[in-house]
Amino acid sequence: MNQAKGAKQWIIPDGYIPPTSAGTLESHESICVLNCSSEEALLSITVFFEDREPIEGMLVVVPGRRTKHIRTSGLAKNGERIPTGVPYAIELISDIPVIVQYSRLDATQAENALMSVMAYPLK
Amino acid sequence: MNQAKGAKQWIIPDGYIPPTSAGTLESHESICVLNCSSEEALLSITVFFEDREPIEGMLVVVPGRRTKHIRTSGLAKNGERIPTGVPYAIELISDIPVIVQYSRLDATQAENALMSVMAYPLK
Amino acid sequence: MNQAKGAKQWIIPDGYIPPTSAGTLESHESICVLNCSSEEALLSITVFFEDREPIEGMLVVVPGRRTKHIRTSGLAKNGERIPTGVPYAIELISDIPVIVQYSRLDATQAENALMSVMAYPLK
Amino acid sequence: MNQAKGAKQWIIPDGYIPPTSAGTLESHESICVLNCSSEEALLSITVFFEDREPIEGMLVVVPGRRTKHIRTSGLAKNGERIPTGVPYAIELISDIPVIVQYSRLDATQAENALMSVMAYPLK
Repeated sequence: MNQAKGAKQWIIPDGYIPPTSAGTLESHESICVLNCSSEEALLSITVFFEDREPIEGMLVVVPGRRTKHIRTSGLAKNGERIPTGVPYAIELISDIPVIVQYSRLDATQAENALMSVMAYPLK
Repeated sequence: MNQAKGAKQWIIPDGYIPPTSAGTLESHESICVLNCSSEEALLSITVFFEDREPIEGMLVVVPGRRTKHIRTSGLAKNGERIPTGVPYAIELISDIPVIVQYSRLDATQAENALMSVMAYPLK
Repeated sequence: MNQAKGAKQWIIPDGYIPPTSAGTLESHESICVLNCSSEEALLSITVFFEDREPIEGMLVVVPGRRTKHIRTSGLAKNGERIPTGVPYAIELISDIPVIVQYSRLDATQAENALMSVMAYPLK
Repeated sequence: MNQAKGAKQWIIPDGYIPPTSAGTLESHESICVLNCSSEEALLSITVFFEDREPIEGMLVVVPGRRTKHIRTSGLAKNGERIPTGVPYAIELISDIPVIVQYSRLDATQAENALMSVMAYPLK
């Protein structure tokens, strides 16, 4: 039996899906989650915007002893997706402790730009 | 009623507005704030320099359940703005807990460079 | 006698070895460890995947009062290495406290992209 | 009277001064320090290497209510400097609490790459 590690709630204030890709790689964001436990983790992701109501409760499962690098462009709730080219923020709630990192590849130009942060854990 | 989350005071030691842009995107910094609460958050931003007095108390409002990605070039106090091409540091104080991340897009060259950090929370 | 500092367990959810290099530099990741103590530190590194069992217990020694910037492509266990082009996650356990940062240089394109995060410490 | 904020000891495991610059900007690292206090802060910086003894106690002063973005290439102790092109790690000790961030601009290629992390605070 492997124990769950990390925190159950994580925040990423700077979400942004670049609208275009000019190079050989595609612009994207990844929410990277590690589940150290033997049990699966059920994630509920809510995204907040500058000028409209949040999209709440997009669900993702991470199996036990696995990582998942979640493309934000693939998240949906009732057919609604995160629009590209719009500033937003991410809240991730898990039923068991996990660890969360956020990375963005911006390929708006022919050459890539990369950024990454550890998400901010709440108690 | 949604609860406020995070911290009331955040620090970003490495502020810098690149003076030029060569690509299709414009060089800029964003202070990205998430307000999880139903109440609005009133932010007071102070910037520190290497060789002059700080600019204190630039005010920004973040509505409840919203994010705001604040362009530092748009901040002002009594008509005074943050100069470009100068190293500075940022202190953000909020009346209710929020979560803060800082990102910079440097388009000094034709191709972009990106960096991002979670701001440092003080108790 | 210098004291050990930091934490004994660190997590990096976003591991990825870029499969190709187009520029003059080679794409790579580094797990950068500082051992402040006078004693050597014995690290055990486990990597987790999205769809297969983890590779557990790859060992690395960091001498006392030294840093080591570990290339992930050099890690192995029973001849098994971390594959390139595959999302994975890293757990690092040390017998004494150390401090851990993770950086990636992506040279998939002719121009470099860089990202770095402090690893997430567990108690 | 303004109060000191932050921590007195900070660690950056991934130090590296790129040996070359190909673009219009010069490759460099900055240790960015904010001193919120009205008193000046005296910093003592030690750097650790992979295969030799540390360079200890390089001193820097940050005036009260000021930031300083310290170029690592300018640090010296008894005429000894940090070599370029060599992996190293940084320990910063301050006599009063400060906040520390580390950023690197890599201009090895014509186009820039940027990375930044908040330094790791020790208690």
